[in-house]
Amino acid sequence: MLDHTHAPGAKSWVDGANGHPDFPVQNLPMGVFRHDGGTPRVGVAIGEHVLDARAAVELGLLDGLDPASRQALSANRLNDWMALPATARQDVRHALFALLDASHPASARHAAQAARLLHPQAECELLLPADVGDYTDFYAGIHHASHVGKLFRPNNPLMPNYKHVPIAYHGRASSICASGTPVRRPRGQVRTAAGVDTPAYRPSAQLDFELELAIWIGPGNALGEPVPLEQAASHVAGYGLLNDWSARDIQAWEYQPLGPFQGKNFASTVSPWVVTAEALAPFRRAAMARGDGDPDLLPYLRNTDDAAMGGMAIALEAWLSTPLMRERSLAPQRLAASDARHLYWTPAQMVTQHTLGGCNLRPGDLLGSGTISTPDDSGHGSLLELTHGGTRPITLPSGETRLFLEAGDEVTLTAHCSRDGFQRIGFGASRARIIE
Amino acid sequence: MLDHTHAPGAKSWVDGANGHPDFPVQNLPMGVFRHDGGTPRVGVAIGEHVLDARAAVELGLLDGLDPASRQALSANRLNDWMALPATARQDVRHALFALLDASHPASARHAAQAARLLHPQAECELLLPADVGDYTDFYAGIHHASHVGKLFRPNNPLMPNYKHVPIAYHGRASSICASGTPVRRPRGQVRTAAGVDTPAYRPSAQLDFELELAIWIGPGNALGEPVPLEQAASHVAGYGLLNDWSARDIQAWEYQPLGPFQGKNFASTVSPWVVTAEALAPFRRAAMARGDGDPDLLPYLRNTDDAAMGGMAIALEAWLSTPLMRERSLAPQRLAASDARHLYWTPAQMVTQHTLGGCNLRPGDLLGSGTISTPDDSGHGSLLELTHGGTRPITLPSGETRLFLEAGDEVTLTAHCSRDGFQRIGFGASRARIIE
Repeated sequence: MLDHTHAPGAKSWVDGANGHPDFPVQNLPMGVFRHDGGTPRVGVAIGEHVLDARAAVELGLLDGLDPASRQALSANRLNDWMALPATARQDVRHALFALLDASHPASARHAAQAARLLHPQAECELLLPADVGDYTDFYAGIHHASHVGKLFRPNNPLMPNYKHVPIAYHGRASSICASGTPVRRPRGQVRTAAGVDTPAYRPSAQLDFELELAIWIGPGNALGEPVPLEQAASHVAGYGLLNDWSARDIQAWEYQPLGPFQGKNFASTVSPWVVTAEALAPFRRAAMARGDGDPDLLPYLRNTDDAAMGGMAIALEAWLSTPLMRERSLAPQRLAASDARHLYWTPAQMVTQHTLGGCNLRPGDLLGSGTISTPDDSGHGSLLELTHGGTRPITLPSGETRLFLEAGDEVTLTAHCSRDGFQRIGFGASRARIIE
Repeated sequence: MLDHTHAPGAKSWVDGANGHPDFPVQNLPMGVFRHDGGTPRVGVAIGEHVLDARAAVELGLLDGLDPASRQALSANRLNDWMALPATARQDVRHALFALLDASHPASARHAAQAARLLHPQAECELLLPADVGDYTDFYAGIHHASHVGKLFRPNNPLMPNYKHVPIAYHGRASSICASGTPVRRPRGQVRTAAGVDTPAYRPSAQLDFELELAIWIGPGNALGEPVPLEQAASHVAGYGLLNDWSARDIQAWEYQPLGPFQGKNFASTVSPWVVTAEALAPFRRAAMARGDGDPDLLPYLRNTDDAAMGGMAIALEAWLSTPLMRERSLAPQRLAASDARHLYWTPAQMVTQHTLGGCNLRPGDLLGSGTISTPDDSGHGSLLELTHGGTRPITLPSGETRLFLEAGDEVTLTAHCSRDGFQRIGFGASRARIIE
């Protein structure tokens, strides 16, 4: 699937795009933006600008695309683009690349339309990329599962099912927020003291972040018709960042026997740009190697074709800034550096597992990967892990300490892909601040 | 809230409506129907007929309603009607009652339009009442929770949190099905034998039903703004029946640590008619009395006003017919007779709990009550309970036995409310058949 759109030498005529750490012409992530109070439109990030996809359609610059694709690019959300078959999404990528490519024969004519086509990102409001029908959160970060399991079951951190079945739970779609939306600290029932089975009603004292990959579903499947693994990767339209905010004290009291509910459903923050499956082609890699003691996979989750398995290398980071740090102009502190390579299950395996019993996925559905941590201390994707269950505070450049998040704290998630011989591409950010 | 629309002597000019066990003029449940291949329309059940609400608007018969209400009745789903404030829903009820009331001064003029206004239900396709944004399943049937808990923890069936916090989990919205949609037996990972931690991939051998009340959310709340208990009842637009199909063997293997997922998400069947909160006014009653040993409720879940607490008496039944029973023209066998009085938490408490941390509910969201069983054997709302964990088969009139559901089995849920001095009203049915 590598083609000229991935060539490291490709350049755009858009000022500032070439060498941009996140959004060179090799990336072309899709999003939804609003400019100057207008209606939401589909946009494409290029350098520090947003390409107005509808304007490009109206100017006749995407006439090579089929009508369904042009209509999808003229919509006010990405669901219709996500619903396109993978081949049509590939065509969209090629058409957008041609429009922005400095070496295209018509590049001068394209650049002459820059005023109609481009807006500075800083002048745009970036919205939720899609209407999310259903949101499902997986638990595929095996080191996170081990670290958290160890806090509760030191000798037996992973459940017996973990290496057999991609575990997940249904999350709340209504409270998925665009990056930048403040997160209000939830109130709820929490234990009055550790180990005590009487609750109090109060604000969560253990508000945490979770560093996750957002997986945006493409065409989806009909009810009762599972997606086999060899087709599963084509059902992922793209990727982003997901902060699955968690109130650990609420979660600890409520989660037996039916799993997380109010400890999670007050907010989840996604990044605005959907990095397409096509843009990630150079950064595919084999799925995580299974250890010697690991059980054999059931055949429906197994494929010798790496592309069908759908592994990826994506560097993921989490950053914290506090009100005091901002007051003192201190840069955000990096809390974690992890990678999608630490997922025990790939997004394709998640799609196959999710649909196995016949459950239908729809375009715009969102999967979370689960928190992605490294095996060692360098990449703990949550404060629960960073502070060893809320027992060992971390120290910040301001001299402050944290066990969990406090008022005004801002968590930013970022990601990028790099590989020798290819241009680096980035995800932008999922960012939000805690309010009381 | 009792008024002339609840008077037992009220009659309709519609043939067959008076004395109808489910749909007399005192009920007026709302639904969405399609007739003769037309577009979906909002309808109201009256006797054996459906009133076409949009036709009534177009004929000018509902001109007394405000424009938002008339528009909601002209839509192709109930979400807009659900979004109306409770006072406007009350006005809609009064206007529909006036239109169908035999004693209304204009009843002859109304009846003259019957051909435009009414369709036989048998000629209509009854659709999903609303687009479900999010579906949440509570666990408020305390006897079900006790029975199921006892199977796993004989000495300690209820979790310590059960009587403090209304427990729930997020379910799958995409696979909510209209009554009549066949349910395909899911395949999935199940243990190869009891107590063994290695799985096989195969069709579920423990397919079960669950008898639940469906609770349809009305106006809802903004993110970050909880609904206090005294306002919670006004956020329920109406009620139906929910069969929360469950694959017990899939569920048993997957549910630790994050709760039910694929054991539930292959299908959930709702009844087509939404019995309005207004119609149920005569059948309100005090919430379940808490036992002497029960802990005090936290104040936010407590109200001395019975109407705010929102308890109800609704008789609920589950019925089974097998292919052999149908071949022999045997009537369906009643498996359970239960009542909404056996809910430990009321729908109003569920709304308050759900929004406590700021989670937003939207019009058309669906809550399940959890399986509602009686304390004794007469009203087990699932085969898991009826067969004591799949160990003691039940015998059917055909001489067949069942531990769990088999191919072609059809489960029907019904409900009604009755009270001395009031007309009985019914819910219609949630019905579906198992296919392989």
